[in-house]
Amino acid sequence: MTQSKLRMGMVGGGQGAFIGEVHRLAARLDGQIELVAGAFSRDPDNSAATGALLGLDSSRCYVDFEQMMQAEAALPEESRMDFVVIVTPNHMHFPVAKAALQAGFHVLSDKPATLNLDEALSLRDLVERSGKRYALTHTYLGYPLVRFAREIVAAGEIGNVRKVFVEYIQGWLAAEVENKQAAWRTDPARSGPSGCMGDIGTHAHNLAEYITGKEMTHVAADLSIFVEGRALDDDGSALFRMQDGVKGVLSASQICVGKENSLSIRVFGETGGLEWHQEEPNSLIRTYSDRPTETIRAAQGYLPDSVSSGYRTPPGHPEGYLEAFANVYLDFAQAIREGRDVATGVAGAVRGMAFVEALVASSQNQSVWTEIDA
Amino acid sequence: MTQSKLRMGMVGGGQGAFIGEVHRLAARLDGQIELVAGAFSRDPDNSAATGALLGLDSSRCYVDFEQMMQAEAALPEESRMDFVVIVTPNHMHFPVAKAALQAGFHVLSDKPATLNLDEALSLRDLVERSGKRYALTHTYLGYPLVRFAREIVAAGEIGNVRKVFVEYIQGWLAAEVENKQAAWRTDPARSGPSGCMGDIGTHAHNLAEYITGKEMTHVAADLSIFVEGRALDDDGSALFRMQDGVKGVLSASQICVGKENSLSIRVFGETGGLEWHQEEPNSLIRTYSDRPTETIRAAQGYLPDSVSSGYRTPPGHPEGYLEAFANVYLDFAQAIREGRDVATGVAGAVRGMAFVEALVASSQNQSVWTEIDA
Amino acid sequence: MTQSKLRMGMVGGGQGAFIGEVHRLAARLDGQIELVAGAFSRDPDNSAATGALLGLDSSRCYVDFEQMMQAEAALPEESRMDFVVIVTPNHMHFPVAKAALQAGFHVLSDKPATLNLDEALSLRDLVERSGKRYALTHTYLGYPLVRFAREIVAAGEIGNVRKVFVEYIQGWLAAEVENKQAAWRTDPARSGPSGCMGDIGTHAHNLAEYITGKEMTHVAADLSIFVEGRALDDDGSALFRMQDGVKGVLSASQICVGKENSLSIRVFGETGGLEWHQEEPNSLIRTYSDRPTETIRAAQGYLPDSVSSGYRTPPGHPEGYLEAFANVYLDFAQAIREGRDVATGVAGAVRGMAFVEALVASSQNQSVWTEIDA
Amino acid sequence: MTQSKLRMGMVGGGQGAFIGEVHRLAARLDGQIELVAGAFSRDPDNSAATGALLGLDSSRCYVDFEQMMQAEAALPEESRMDFVVIVTPNHMHFPVAKAALQAGFHVLSDKPATLNLDEALSLRDLVERSGKRYALTHTYLGYPLVRFAREIVAAGEIGNVRKVFVEYIQGWLAAEVENKQAAWRTDPARSGPSGCMGDIGTHAHNLAEYITGKEMTHVAADLSIFVEGRALDDDGSALFRMQDGVKGVLSASQICVGKENSLSIRVFGETGGLEWHQEEPNSLIRTYSDRPTETIRAAQGYLPDSVSSGYRTPPGHPEGYLEAFANVYLDFAQAIREGRDVATGVAGAVRGMAFVEALVASSQNQSVWTEIDA
Repeated sequence: MTQSKLRMGMVGGGQGAFIGEVHRLAARLDGQIELVAGAFSRDPDNSAATGALLGLDSSRCYVDFEQMMQAEAALPEESRMDFVVIVTPNHMHFPVAKAALQAGFHVLSDKPATLNLDEALSLRDLVERSGKRYALTHTYLGYPLVRFAREIVAAGEIGNVRKVFVEYIQGWLAAEVENKQAAWRTDPARSGPSGCMGDIGTHAHNLAEYITGKEMTHVAADLSIFVEGRALDDDGSALFRMQDGVKGVLSASQICVGKENSLSIRVFGETGGLEWHQEEPNSLIRTYSDRPTETIRAAQGYLPDSVSSGYRTPPGHPEGYLEAFANVYLDFAQAIREGRDVATGVAGAVRGMAFVEALVASSQNQSVWTEIDA
Repeated sequence: MTQSKLRMGMVGGGQGAFIGEVHRLAARLDGQIELVAGAFSRDPDNSAATGALLGLDSSRCYVDFEQMMQAEAALPEESRMDFVVIVTPNHMHFPVAKAALQAGFHVLSDKPATLNLDEALSLRDLVERSGKRYALTHTYLGYPLVRFAREIVAAGEIGNVRKVFVEYIQGWLAAEVENKQAAWRTDPARSGPSGCMGDIGTHAHNLAEYITGKEMTHVAADLSIFVEGRALDDDGSALFRMQDGVKGVLSASQICVGKENSLSIRVFGETGGLEWHQEEPNSLIRTYSDRPTETIRAAQGYLPDSVSSGYRTPPGHPEGYLEAFANVYLDFAQAIREGRDVATGVAGAVRGMAFVEALVASSQNQSVWTEIDA
Repeated sequence: MTQSKLRMGMVGGGQGAFIGEVHRLAARLDGQIELVAGAFSRDPDNSAATGALLGLDSSRCYVDFEQMMQAEAALPEESRMDFVVIVTPNHMHFPVAKAALQAGFHVLSDKPATLNLDEALSLRDLVERSGKRYALTHTYLGYPLVRFAREIVAAGEIGNVRKVFVEYIQGWLAAEVENKQAAWRTDPARSGPSGCMGDIGTHAHNLAEYITGKEMTHVAADLSIFVEGRALDDDGSALFRMQDGVKGVLSASQICVGKENSLSIRVFGETGGLEWHQEEPNSLIRTYSDRPTETIRAAQGYLPDSVSSGYRTPPGHPEGYLEAFANVYLDFAQAIREGRDVATGVAGAVRGMAFVEALVASSQNQSVWTEIDA
Repeated sequence: MTQSKLRMGMVGGGQGAFIGEVHRLAARLDGQIELVAGAFSRDPDNSAATGALLGLDSSRCYVDFEQMMQAEAALPEESRMDFVVIVTPNHMHFPVAKAALQAGFHVLSDKPATLNLDEALSLRDLVERSGKRYALTHTYLGYPLVRFAREIVAAGEIGNVRKVFVEYIQGWLAAEVENKQAAWRTDPARSGPSGCMGDIGTHAHNLAEYITGKEMTHVAADLSIFVEGRALDDDGSALFRMQDGVKGVLSASQICVGKENSLSIRVFGETGGLEWHQEEPNSLIRTYSDRPTETIRAAQGYLPDSVSSGYRTPPGHPEGYLEAFANVYLDFAQAIREGRDVATGVAGAVRGMAFVEALVASSQNQSVWTEIDA
């Protein structure tokens, strides 16, 4: 089990960028990954300062990602980075991933993978040709009880799935907000065709497909801009249909005042139901037709090993977002070592973009049922 | 304040009928209403036995509602019934209401008021011409915190309303069920054009309009029959739009295994939000953008009198469904005494039927946006 | 099943007295009890006005309880009251009960039964000699899930009981309060030797004994007066021991700011646990060592008939304090009809007083372990 | 802000020891601490293997702590460890701390600091003479909302504190358990005079003192051994008194079937209350006498900087036990850099031991009130 650490290069994540620091915390937690290189910011001073703060060799703090790929590829195999993590605004995800793959590096990318479906399809080709690992940081799939929910459904324990309710609602954009986080999320050039749905609706879509094991096939969507002057949706709801007759409702919103990161899902099958809330991730609710509702808890002895192995502490010591995020890193590291694909790979990238494009198309066309063409 | 009791006649509610007994409990609770007459069942023996059990004079246990209207109208004013409560299956609501109004009695009716919109419009005319009170038992409006939610919104305290999530989900029809309750709810001839939506979706619709003070104008609906062999929807979801740009999602389902009577609503305005769950009716959640979320509690001293007067016991003594139901009776009794209209009057009856018809039409037409024509 | 109503006379409960009205609501709910007589207040005008408001014959509104007992006993059996309900301040409970029993009436009394243990022992003798029913309105035993908790324990399903946590905390006396409710509760002459413990600690004691089926044998108590100038405890906690090695902690407080009627109990046995909260009375939590925690819900099909029969509505329609109270009335009425004892009879009255006296004695004596001598 | 990492040596925490790995996760999370040396196990193979797995230089994997102190002290200042973390069973805490302090190293120790009060007093002397930092890993003080609770109380916002309820209950020792964790916790030679109270009761004590800012002065305790054959308490409750008239109840138990790490505290002052549960650490409940109860949430903008700075992610991304633990490490690292004391320093070590000794003495002496002599 003694393994050398995987070496990571980061694009984006300069000082002041929230998500970059979160990635570093998650990558660091289990001691299996080492940050060795970075193109943290297009501002060379910021990039250098960030690297210094993180204890990086200054020679491996780059001014842009192209330079980084070139320079790292030129290093001896035993010291150059193994993979690139992409934590830039959305519009840079694809160009950086492309450059990394072409330079021979595995890629872990924030979602969305690309700005549109065409790019996602190109990315898929690139990944397939490269023979490298590619994964999206669908953080919420890193929660072990989400994996357990998927296992319960897959085992047929709730019968055929019938109905899914999934939503991701926040309140932080209920009024005009002027900060870096808000700026790119509301800018079509940097976020793609959708704001709220592209940012967080995709998490809801991804979670629904993951737990049910079904692909979403059609949506009838109504996206909204509630805050005047905004160019992209800050709210939306959609009816949807999945394979095998599953139906559902998906909502995402950033104008639900007082809500934080309220991602939740409820799945009902013929004989049972499951319910999970991201903000209370250590409980999974299970309903029956003829028995009391159960609260399945993190790290409990009654969980299968595949689930309980995802916890670092015994029951009752809450684990949260960073641990879930670290699980995504662990899974990616393991996939690199084993040369296998991950559940959050490029196929999901394509599906996510197709989902967003279908939503936007439906909403622009009187909410007509629109196929997700992935 | 010493008032003589109002005298009530009941149509429906024979032995074995759940809802009739609930009505009697609610009517009895506050000691202001007395059951004096009944046409409890089309089975004369059942009707007589029910009346006997309830201590009614056998001369006032009727074999059908026509006989009841005629005989009661012939009694001296000081002894004949003041109003009729209708607790039959849906298809009888309108004929009985019509007969009662025409015989000069006020009417309190279970919802839906009628089987379709045409009947509802006729009913509205009848009510207007009669000069009598007519109300639907929208029980959930009887919860004082629902009234408080309406007052908060009306006072502008959450800003202009933007988004509404409302749902009513149950699990009891997730499999085929063979009992009296299930039988008429799944029979078009007795339930009207919709099963689940007509039965409980209308409560969700009614609650959303009541709290927001806005009329729902359009729906894009997807109704489903999940249990094979059923003739009416047992599940459905709809995107909707209300006056003044409010948007929302409404779901109703009877196939959500393990769910009981999970009616809940969340309303988000520009500056705040409200959340209420029927199964925990003594709390109202209020969210802010810049302050902690509050849990407003039943019967508390900080509530306005208009709300706290709806409670019979001090804070911390849970009040529930029967008390809410009794509030509907109290309000109706008061309206009769004062000769005023009630919030749950015939206008809502028309709106409810128009809502159901719009849902069904939309669902049959590819979920196209359909106007609620009330 | 056709039964004539039981006729009730009430002592106390004049206009402005909260608890009298609650009794009347509870007695009325199921239509099996009729209020026919009252000595509602020592103020004859109040008594008469209360009776008039309630539709009582003025001849049966009495100026004091002695007159009431005498006059009612003189009425023909078919019209005189069957039982007396006592809703006066504490110090009157015993004298009224005594008079009623001696006049040949069954008695339902608010707790505490008497002001001290000596009176309680006298009361026990009186009851035994009278051959009449006597019961205390331990309202919280009226919740069907409390009964289910008792059944689970009695069936050995959680193994031998080891530890009990029980508490009843309120906040309404956290500051000086000037009203009728507060006045007598803080007056030794009207409340007996304890304030908070006598008022609500006894509910906690009673609940613990009822669910576990064990008698509390010893307490080590620390009672407090936190609000200056008060003559009786407004807070207290006690370690306790029960039969068969059960240990526990009991707290009661009226100075816990923001708390309403937070009565809760947790019972842990060798192999399982139970948890119930009065403010969410429709759920009973059950814990296991090797399975997920369950939430048992009111009125569910999986409950035994002995429990589900205590509900008036299907699952998901919350029932609360008034329904529990009405169950106490129903049980008492049934006991009268069957000539049997009730679970909340005079034995509990003696136990409750002995409990309070032991608490006070322990607290006055350095919290030394003190036997409950009942 | 660019700081070199602090170098850490670990005593205990060999493969198979749960808590050592938790420490390493916590120490690693923020990238400010580097593990450089270890005496992980008395089994040299285990120690070496653990070090290898962690990427340590084999020359710095020691066979015992004495050797470690000597060898590290002999290294040049710029490479030798800065501090020692002690994660052994309880009986080794003091000897290792003593050796470390005497060799000139700062010490971070699992609690309890020592096996008894005498040792704790010696430790205090040692710390004072050494001029080095000493801290206990009272992990639960690492939750930022716990710090906020303390600030609210200190600012007088709930008035003078009156009553405290604190408890820490688990279920994992409800039956005989045979594993390493259970073995030393139930062995007096390795755990000291108390089992459950020493292990987790001390957390409850520490939390109560921290939030209220008051010292606990007296206890009246009842400790129990429920599982036959066990030598130390597996359950206990105590009445307690604190400075300035504060009263309370403390319970700790390891036989509460189904409970995980249920540490919770409720503090009531004259005008408000606070409630916090370790298993839902991202919420702090605040009660008022005349306003709705508030749920204060982690990382919210309305928190003071002193609190919000303790979070690594925005609101709604749950942080948990590991993040709290990492905060303890951050605080200790900062204290070393600044040469200042920490809130969880040696004074608390003495207080904790005095608390345990008072509990045991009281329990052995008929639960008589016993002074905590610290």
